[in-house]
Amino acid sequence: MKSYWIWHYGEYEIFHTMNVHLRRETRGYHIPAYWKLCTPYASVKFRKQVNSEGGYLLCCINGSGCVSIDGNLYDPGKRIEIAPGLHTVDICVSNFGGLPAVFIESDICPSDATWSCNHYAGDFSPVGYHPFFDDVAKNPEVFPFEYERRTPINKELLKGGVLYDFGTELFGFLNIENANDGETIGVFYGESREEALDTAYSYLSDSVWGQKSYRLRQRAFRYVYLEGNACDVALSADFEYLPVEAKGTFTCENALFNKIYNAAVRTFHLNCREGFFDGIKRDRWIWSGDAYQSARINRYLFADKDIEQRTLIGLIGKKPIEQFINTIMDYSLLWIIMLNEHYMTYGDKEFLSRIFPMASELLRFVETRLNRDGFIEGFKGDWIFVDWSNMDKCGAVCAEQMLLIEAYRAMSCISIAIGDGDCDELAKKEKELVDRVNKYYWNEEKGGFIDSYQSGKNNVTRHANIFAVLYGIANEHQTASILENVLKNDSITKITTPYFEGYELDALAKLGEFAALEEMLKNYWGGMIELGAETIWEEYHPEMVGIEHYAMYGRKYEKSLCNAWGAGPVYIFGRYYLGVYATKPGYEAFEVAPQLGGLSEINGTVPINGGLVKVSLNSKTLSVIATKSGGTLIWKGKRYSLMPDQPIMLVNNDKT
Amino acid sequence: MKSYWIWHYGEYEIFHTMNVHLRRETRGYHIPAYWKLCTPYASVKFRKQVNSEGGYLLCCINGSGCVSIDGNLYDPGKRIEIAPGLHTVDICVSNFGGLPAVFIESDICPSDATWSCNHYAGDFSPVGYHPFFDDVAKNPEVFPFEYERRTPINKELLKGGVLYDFGTELFGFLNIENANDGETIGVFYGESREEALDTAYSYLSDSVWGQKSYRLRQRAFRYVYLEGNACDVALSADFEYLPVEAKGTFTCENALFNKIYNAAVRTFHLNCREGFFDGIKRDRWIWSGDAYQSARINRYLFADKDIEQRTLIGLIGKKPIEQFINTIMDYSLLWIIMLNEHYMTYGDKEFLSRIFPMASELLRFVETRLNRDGFIEGFKGDWIFVDWSNMDKCGAVCAEQMLLIEAYRAMSCISIAIGDGDCDELAKKEKELVDRVNKYYWNEEKGGFIDSYQSGKNNVTRHANIFAVLYGIANEHQTASILENVLKNDSITKITTPYFEGYELDALAKLGEFAALEEMLKNYWGGMIELGAETIWEEYHPEMVGIEHYAMYGRKYEKSLCNAWGAGPVYIFGRYYLGVYATKPGYEAFEVAPQLGGLSEINGTVPINGGLVKVSLNSKTLSVIATKSGGTLIWKGKRYSLMPDQPIMLVNNDKT
Repeated sequence: MKSYWIWHYGEYEIFHTMNVHLRRETRGYHIPAYWKLCTPYASVKFRKQVNSEGGYLLCCINGSGCVSIDGNLYDPGKRIEIAPGLHTVDICVSNFGGLPAVFIESDICPSDATWSCNHYAGDFSPVGYHPFFDDVAKNPEVFPFEYERRTPINKELLKGGVLYDFGTELFGFLNIENANDGETIGVFYGESREEALDTAYSYLSDSVWGQKSYRLRQRAFRYVYLEGNACDVALSADFEYLPVEAKGTFTCENALFNKIYNAAVRTFHLNCREGFFDGIKRDRWIWSGDAYQSARINRYLFADKDIEQRTLIGLIGKKPIEQFINTIMDYSLLWIIMLNEHYMTYGDKEFLSRIFPMASELLRFVETRLNRDGFIEGFKGDWIFVDWSNMDKCGAVCAEQMLLIEAYRAMSCISIAIGDGDCDELAKKEKELVDRVNKYYWNEEKGGFIDSYQSGKNNVTRHANIFAVLYGIANEHQTASILENVLKNDSITKITTPYFEGYELDALAKLGEFAALEEMLKNYWGGMIELGAETIWEEYHPEMVGIEHYAMYGRKYEKSLCNAWGAGPVYIFGRYYLGVYATKPGYEAFEVAPQLGGLSEINGTVPINGGLVKVSLNSKTLSVIATKSGGTLIWKGKRYSLMPDQPIMLVNNDKT
Repeated sequence: MKSYWIWHYGEYEIFHTMNVHLRRETRGYHIPAYWKLCTPYASVKFRKQVNSEGGYLLCCINGSGCVSIDGNLYDPGKRIEIAPGLHTVDICVSNFGGLPAVFIESDICPSDATWSCNHYAGDFSPVGYHPFFDDVAKNPEVFPFEYERRTPINKELLKGGVLYDFGTELFGFLNIENANDGETIGVFYGESREEALDTAYSYLSDSVWGQKSYRLRQRAFRYVYLEGNACDVALSADFEYLPVEAKGTFTCENALFNKIYNAAVRTFHLNCREGFFDGIKRDRWIWSGDAYQSARINRYLFADKDIEQRTLIGLIGKKPIEQFINTIMDYSLLWIIMLNEHYMTYGDKEFLSRIFPMASELLRFVETRLNRDGFIEGFKGDWIFVDWSNMDKCGAVCAEQMLLIEAYRAMSCISIAIGDGDCDELAKKEKELVDRVNKYYWNEEKGGFIDSYQSGKNNVTRHANIFAVLYGIANEHQTASILENVLKNDSITKITTPYFEGYELDALAKLGEFAALEEMLKNYWGGMIELGAETIWEEYHPEMVGIEHYAMYGRKYEKSLCNAWGAGPVYIFGRYYLGVYATKPGYEAFEVAPQLGGLSEINGTVPINGGLVKVSLNSKTLSVIATKSGGTLIWKGKRYSLMPDQPIMLVNNDKT
């Protein structure tokens, strides 16, 4: 019978998320994450009722503990015979500083999803496990990455040292072989050539001495500069990555857009790890807003449900909730919205039910920030982020209210799905908040929502207005006004992060503004590509030159040049060009509404929770095929039912 | 300037309590505690604002992390110069699996009580520290016990092996020297001679081979039986103990009572460690009800405030409270009562303020167990312990209500002391509960409080009635009736644990029933002493014979023969014979009301929070002296003010 490592549900994710958040290296310094870290329980009791004709068990405990059968103790390290009949098997595991887990080989009760456990409090509930950990030798404390040997594509002797170029960014162990053990070698990493060579300022560096070969700790880099007598060394890297398959694809006739897509995919894959990371060089942390974008991208690329669930669990942690996720109000609201969108994509009701109590707890926490006017407003220690952009953050910020509205809707959908929670109350709160937002924040004269009603400045930025369009909060009149007076208004400060550009693209696509969208892709994402970027950056200012592009947070190379929130076009191409989206949870129903925009030919696939949709559209024909039922093709105002594996071919006679 | 190891307040206690609760060895098996364990935070940020003419700091981090001064990072392992002026020094420490702590050597900001910290959530608040940890080499993860070499007082060749007797029980490392490295030695520990010799059933045992000398892990024992060729070995033990001074003393003319007192002191000291343990052989855990008794004993012996605070913090842990302390309802209520009595003794308002939020949280948790009649009743998973005694535990148990009444009073006192909480509301709840208890539980016919009003059995046990007297809940009529119909009624089941006998002694003393009290001391505690006990047992049944005495929980030697809850007489002698007690927090005011009971001469001292009271009383004279002010001597209905260091001598002319 098949056995798996089992643990307290959620603890695997909490353990690995904690490790991620404790592991940051910044210019040689160790910096723990800026928020409270959740840790696994120190002791867990696993239980199963067994009714059999007798058998045995042999268990391997990750930690220390004992086996108890009907209250009699046994040595966990030895084979235990179980007499015929009904028995209660308890495995007590304690492990402070690790992940309490157990692997049980048995002919009657192997460790699997049928076991329950608790943390010595509360009811017993089904354990957590993952099909990967099906061997006692696969320790669940070791995250299952895969590895691939990479060698530099170029080598230059420069300034008395050697500069290596691995071609594109990677993350992994650097191997130095054939070194002179009497020489010190300075190792300087760079996402850019300039960074590796600027040895006084490289974000990541190392210094080795006394051996003939070295295997250095995992780091992110494209370039490595070795300082010292390193001409004869053999350099290689063991690229460490999450094994995931790109189920989603997209190509078009526009070479730049294809390059953008591929750079976005590369960027995104490097940041898909224990959870959705922000940047692979820095912070290598899981930020909920970044992760919200990543989850949307993931659904049109890897459709990896596991990484979304790891991210959701790792971010929410466990009670008590004492602060916003990552300390950020908007990121906490995006977590709730992400959860509902996750459910819509994968339809995993079991997961939804298990995480629901924490989602409710988070919403309750958010509501502790309601001010006297009924708007959420930051208290001391709360971070009102929204974006790296100038914004009037006096008092209650409009963008936060927009997210709260959507979070109420999300929680309402979740409540209906699992038959728990008060969806009427949620709907009431949402409606009242929409009314209040319109009353306090809508400025007819400016034609948009203002940032703050308390400052008196009536400042308009794109952010709240983008959310209002994106989540359908703005009414028809407001939407038209926002498009005209905010989105297409060059006097409104431009977005500089691909994070919020991602939302802006989405809003434009939603409004059918493909010309503006493609202009933005070309200028903004294309701008980075033109500068030689193989991965998408954390921020981009077209007006900057040279190494100005690499600076951020007041430091020369602090900007991440491989930042997941730059991969938004993957989502846009799949969601709006290929035009595939779920209309019932788990893609039980879905629509396919392809659009060419300003392009003349698009081809691609979109994963639809166990199935695939393939779309080919050019100026003459449209071809769509889905591998599972529930699909509706929407084309030129008509609806066509998609039968599984039966292609629909239509003439595209509007275009020439 | 003096530096100390500093940590997040309470985390030292939580760390060590967790270790205690993860460390139990039972017949070779490792058994974690039966309740949820709290663990330290994984990362802590320490902060201090420094305004100086410049200086340096050098820090040692227990874990990993970095130093940040005004946001600039520094290597924690190197000496850091601080420029003149105002600076914010942050030390980030992460340590999953240990105790995040830091030791800072500095001429301007050494690590001490003036530093603050948080766990990356919430406000910064003053750190925890202890004067003992004043050296970087004293790791706060290592509990500061002291050690003393002990050798056996007797050695017997028996059954081919050797039995050693260390004279009295001890806890520590067993050292075996001069062993034959080709021979296996079986090591069998015993609290009793029989246990050590009964090698198939000894609770603690070991087996060693292949060395000439061994140092075995710490265990509790008086006897050690070495099986195998061990005639020539040299055996010794390193007794591990908490260094505390016996400030309280008591002697009288009754040799048996003196023996009881000394055995109780020995028993108690062995169980005073990271916190108040139950038994030194088993469980070696901190149980709140046992600890409540221990705290009362401690106040008349060591008056060690630290161990009480370690116990209180370790037991309450941190939010969320998901279950009763040790899962036991009564033990949770006793925690609240203990906290107030602790404050009365030491007057430590700072400690009280810091632990108050958790005390409130615990009371809120208790109130989740209120039934429709307004009584607390166990839910699934709650343990209604009260005592190892037959009791009608149907529904809401009377003894629990008695403790809730006293807990309301305790919380009310605490609220008043720190000026927080709603003492009017607490007083109202208490009064209403007293009325309900009288209505539902008082049985005039039986002349006592019944166990359960829901079962219809009207069963009377001593327990609730003892609490009613002890905490002054019974009115005058009820008290007289309880004394007659319950306490002095032999048809009411006798108490068998020294735990509840301790409460019974207390109730009898309170009622002035010294004859009954002394009879109980003589028969119950004296009974164990007569059987050769050097330490007090977990339970005692006078009718048992031989090794029957050592059995419990269905196993031959599972009873603890050195159990702290047997040390109650230490409290009784100090509290009622020497007659010393605080009447204002911290012994700012206190009374001394000595009583001879049936004795003819008593001498002793009682610690009074930084001072001492010395009492000598015989049939002719009374002499009392206190080292601090605030005392009132009460003698034969008269009150005498005690001036510091000025003895009062009175004639005792009632006795002849």
